[in-house]
Amino acid sequence: MKEPEGRARVIIEEVQPQIEGGRFPIKRAIGEKVRVEADILADGHDTLSAVLLYRKEGNPQWVETPMGLVVNDRWQASFVVGELGCYHYTIMAWIDRFKSWRRNLAKKVEAGQDISVDLLVGAQLIAEASQRTSGAEGQMMQEWAKSFESTRVAQADKVQLGLSEEVAELLFRHSDRPFAVTYPGELIVSVDRDRARFSTWYELFPRSCAPEPGRHGTFKDCESRLPYIAEMGFDVLYFPPIHPIGYTHRKGKNNAITAGPGDPGTPWAIGAQQGGHKAVHPELGTLEAFRRLVNKAKELAIEVALDLAFQCSPDHPYVKEHAEWLHWRPDGTIQYAENPPKKYEDIHPLDFETEQWQSLWEELKSIVLFWIDQGVRIFRVDNPHTKPFCFWEWLISEVKKDHPDVIFLSEAFTRPKVMYQLAKLGFTQSYTYFAWRNTRWELTEYFTELTQTEVREFFRPNLWPNTPDILTEYLQTGGRPAFIIRLVLAATLGANYGIYGPAFELCESQPRELGSEEYLDSEKYEIRHWDIARADSLRNLITRVNRIRRENSALQSDWSLRFHPADSEQLICYSKHDGSLSNIIVVVVNLDPHHTHAGWVELPLSDLGLEPRHPYQVHELLSDARYLWQGPRNYVELNPHIVPAHIFHVRRRVRTEREFDYFM
Amino acid sequence: MKEPEGRARVIIEEVQPQIEGGRFPIKRAIGEKVRVEADILADGHDTLSAVLLYRKEGNPQWVETPMGLVVNDRWQASFVVGELGCYHYTIMAWIDRFKSWRRNLAKKVEAGQDISVDLLVGAQLIAEASQRTSGAEGQMMQEWAKSFESTRVAQADKVQLGLSEEVAELLFRHSDRPFAVTYPGELIVSVDRDRARFSTWYELFPRSCAPEPGRHGTFKDCESRLPYIAEMGFDVLYFPPIHPIGYTHRKGKNNAITAGPGDPGTPWAIGAQQGGHKAVHPELGTLEAFRRLVNKAKELAIEVALDLAFQCSPDHPYVKEHAEWLHWRPDGTIQYAENPPKKYEDIHPLDFETEQWQSLWEELKSIVLFWIDQGVRIFRVDNPHTKPFCFWEWLISEVKKDHPDVIFLSEAFTRPKVMYQLAKLGFTQSYTYFAWRNTRWELTEYFTELTQTEVREFFRPNLWPNTPDILTEYLQTGGRPAFIIRLVLAATLGANYGIYGPAFELCESQPRELGSEEYLDSEKYEIRHWDIARADSLRNLITRVNRIRRENSALQSDWSLRFHPADSEQLICYSKHDGSLSNIIVVVVNLDPHHTHAGWVELPLSDLGLEPRHPYQVHELLSDARYLWQGPRNYVELNPHIVPAHIFHVRRRVRTEREFDYFM
Repeated sequence: MKEPEGRARVIIEEVQPQIEGGRFPIKRAIGEKVRVEADILADGHDTLSAVLLYRKEGNPQWVETPMGLVVNDRWQASFVVGELGCYHYTIMAWIDRFKSWRRNLAKKVEAGQDISVDLLVGAQLIAEASQRTSGAEGQMMQEWAKSFESTRVAQADKVQLGLSEEVAELLFRHSDRPFAVTYPGELIVSVDRDRARFSTWYELFPRSCAPEPGRHGTFKDCESRLPYIAEMGFDVLYFPPIHPIGYTHRKGKNNAITAGPGDPGTPWAIGAQQGGHKAVHPELGTLEAFRRLVNKAKELAIEVALDLAFQCSPDHPYVKEHAEWLHWRPDGTIQYAENPPKKYEDIHPLDFETEQWQSLWEELKSIVLFWIDQGVRIFRVDNPHTKPFCFWEWLISEVKKDHPDVIFLSEAFTRPKVMYQLAKLGFTQSYTYFAWRNTRWELTEYFTELTQTEVREFFRPNLWPNTPDILTEYLQTGGRPAFIIRLVLAATLGANYGIYGPAFELCESQPRELGSEEYLDSEKYEIRHWDIARADSLRNLITRVNRIRRENSALQSDWSLRFHPADSEQLICYSKHDGSLSNIIVVVVNLDPHHTHAGWVELPLSDLGLEPRHPYQVHELLSDARYLWQGPRNYVELNPHIVPAHIFHVRRRVRTEREFDYFM
Repeated sequence: MKEPEGRARVIIEEVQPQIEGGRFPIKRAIGEKVRVEADILADGHDTLSAVLLYRKEGNPQWVETPMGLVVNDRWQASFVVGELGCYHYTIMAWIDRFKSWRRNLAKKVEAGQDISVDLLVGAQLIAEASQRTSGAEGQMMQEWAKSFESTRVAQADKVQLGLSEEVAELLFRHSDRPFAVTYPGELIVSVDRDRARFSTWYELFPRSCAPEPGRHGTFKDCESRLPYIAEMGFDVLYFPPIHPIGYTHRKGKNNAITAGPGDPGTPWAIGAQQGGHKAVHPELGTLEAFRRLVNKAKELAIEVALDLAFQCSPDHPYVKEHAEWLHWRPDGTIQYAENPPKKYEDIHPLDFETEQWQSLWEELKSIVLFWIDQGVRIFRVDNPHTKPFCFWEWLISEVKKDHPDVIFLSEAFTRPKVMYQLAKLGFTQSYTYFAWRNTRWELTEYFTELTQTEVREFFRPNLWPNTPDILTEYLQTGGRPAFIIRLVLAATLGANYGIYGPAFELCESQPRELGSEEYLDSEKYEIRHWDIARADSLRNLITRVNRIRRENSALQSDWSLRFHPADSEQLICYSKHDGSLSNIIVVVVNLDPHHTHAGWVELPLSDLGLEPRHPYQVHELLSDARYLWQGPRNYVELNPHIVPAHIFHVRRRVRTEREFDYFM
């Protein structure tokens, strides 16, 4: 510890971004910017200088970038993260004697005051700096100092020199930063690859992939399905668990308490005689077949994502080999999963309060590493909110040490602060409440929270209109237009989104019973056969929407999202852009799947770089139609039975006579 | 450092109140409440318990109070600070096995599920608790555990026992708190005496206190003035510096660059042959006379506050004895105070960047201790923002170690974050921008920021309508009504307020020149004689306003302040109450000193505990008039030439026929 230094007069406070006082890193993808702000102040009237310091983890050398005063003692600077892994950042600030001198000199000159002593002070400051500076620059400073003291140099020339940019720049570079203060925290930004920021997911039950009905699908069948998925434009193919399924207490069709003969059970009841979390369900194929599928997918720019569901069927090898990892009840039975009065007798949770928690943690980590060895780099984590937060923080950081490219998607549908905690501690992406946000007010409130508050620093939303567990009432009752509406919303509100198919593109909408969000004849409990060639499939629309996403960088990140007024409460209007406004997308969706709605929408022209007096072209990318708009308010009419949404690409410049060859 | 414990599953975050992650203490006065909130959560569906822990500094023993869940994983509990000094507070939380068991049992019973194993689990939990519990309580637990296991006790009785409050209460008290988590920070609340929260200041130049014109006033003269000040209801009497005044570069009347013969100079040019900061200006009297004055004031419940202006005249003894504490320029002269192009040649700032900063700090501390020895416990600190923040933090904490009753008022009129920083680091009260907030919007915005945001945790506003440096344009142009308006606003918006008199009560309003906020013939540069017996003095009004403040606890603290709608933009309406709504004050002020304004004001009845259907009485305390009001909207008309403000005491109950003796 250094001696306290009573002359360190600068305060650095309220540094942003930071989460819980730097307890957790913020998140960025490669190439994204970190804009750092802080309150920086000192007593008195002296002028301050401040620099943002940042470095890649492992590299002791800080890079500096000067900070600028914004307003109200708030300073700001940015840096771009270029590599996977972690960067550290902090701030240094000091009272800048030369800057203070220069500012005071200018004021006194303007007020016509005597400056002779000030020039001597300036000479002293420059002479001191020259002592710290070698070579030509040091010599130049010595000459400047001399000319300040020289009686032969006119005062006007001295003033001109003292106020010159050249002197200011050199003195800043060679400032001795007296009593500089460094912000005590080193803040961290965790940098992921592009797909953490922009990804398009497709969830599929491999066992339902057989081309003919009645047969258990295989990895080989999945291979044949790959072109269909790639053509639609998906880049992540996520499978529910692919491991052996338990027999004891196996659930039957539609979650029946007892399985019928031949019922395959739910893939989340992991583990049987054939193995546990590192084994492959024999009917799907071999581990080698799986690896082959992963590679085939890669050729089509698709990554295979696996499910991490850390729980056991009663037949999992752990039950015998690691009884100490399970929770035993006083009657000698193992505790099954329950959330009273709900019971899941086919599933045993692991006991994270076991004395042997360390060996349990190591085993679970080895499962992740095992699948990384098979070529998997994306994991969707099942119900992470039922395992300790500190376990996930450890697991994710352990895995990322050697594999910083791994992506973890948190499948938690629980209270908001629990979902945010999982994101803070390291999950790369997170499921959201999107499925249940249907009205304009709900969508506006929720996505403003996700994209315009501190939440965006750590929580990357991944939007799913449906999952095997979630067939929303909106989809149940809204027909095909509801599916289109929810697809366009997911794909344009979120840079990361996914669908559970083929249920989604085939508009599967029958619930198990009224009031339930479970699918009738859910794939969770039986093998389904899907006619993916059906004429009414949304396949082509999905293909088009995903192409629009790929071609428009505005849709590949979330922070620029802004909602705009629309006359009708059933119309939602919002825009996104890349940082530089060179790509601007405006989306208008009719949220009512039953009726046509029309009205005026209002764009904030100056925010979008549009001139109020010049017309601009909006190119509707779903229909390829083009419209000339002018001013902030323009008219939109959407019939959900034709197409309930517009995705406009805004072209800022419209040609006029001035561009006609012979105009000039 | 303890081994990492992977089973500690609880998260405690976003603990409020805290300032800069606990870097600074929050502030309270004796008897005030600290309401602590935090996000507390864990994985899974278990039930949590949490306690707020607090202790007086120096006492290692924590006091516990249980926290309750408010909403959205936010928990809350409060404690009251009873003694001067510092209290520490933090939070502990754990997964409460018995509470979880009890909740699950209730749910299962309701769903008609088998609970035989649950009862065994309960027996185990209670038996474990009995091991930790001695005496009768431990025995009772053992019996409970046995009856859970007994086949002779009916299940219904077991359930009743298991869900009983008695068992719950005992199990909570003897919980083993497995894997409990304590919030890593110990947060601090600094507790001041009552006068830090509620004080009424009067600023006076002692040299202007002589009863006859032309003579230099003395401490003796101040003694004679005390009854006048006490009668008006002031409890702090603050003097500008009382030390010898320098001669070199002494300023003349109206800040003339050269003093005329007999000009007394500004009291802030401290130090002469007769001594420095520990000496008394000979013309005021002796140190003994000062002590006598302090005691006389005390008899009238008035505390004398001194000015701490850490700067020197060129004749201060420090200049010769401690040249190392001043900033020498290259021409061999000492740097005078300046903020280019402004110059203050009669004042040398101390050089806080001196190599000898430690001896300088010690000397300045000794000045404070010197005046504490003379009986002074309140200091108004002159321009604290021109001395290092770390110096003040050190000085205040050093002084408070032995004298926790000392109050420091920060006289900083500078940028908001600098003012807030001084408050954070320890100043008890702070000057504000009140003098320049005149319109309804300005007042509402500013006082909402001061009383409804985090600022209130550390910044105690002290409101001054005028000071020797500040004669606002509003007072210059608004005549006597303007003085009344500003008095009522200061005295009711702020529990702490002060006036600079007799200039204020005599409505002195002539500026030195147009566009200046300086007084013409300011007491800063000359001795004035005031006719305090003038018939047009505001003395009686001030007396009444200060009595209203003393008699209504609603006006003795700031956090309850709320603004309410009024039809006319020139009318401002606000209320304050004591915490329990047993004292409610509603203030309506006409902000226009020239014209009558009238309109309807709207009170939030339910917030004030008023029944919409019952009439209520408002007692106007300035005029002693009483009105019957009903409902939220009531009519008010204020003629500034009669009285521009109402201060209503709200009486919630109005008598009706039911209270008449013979009604029943």
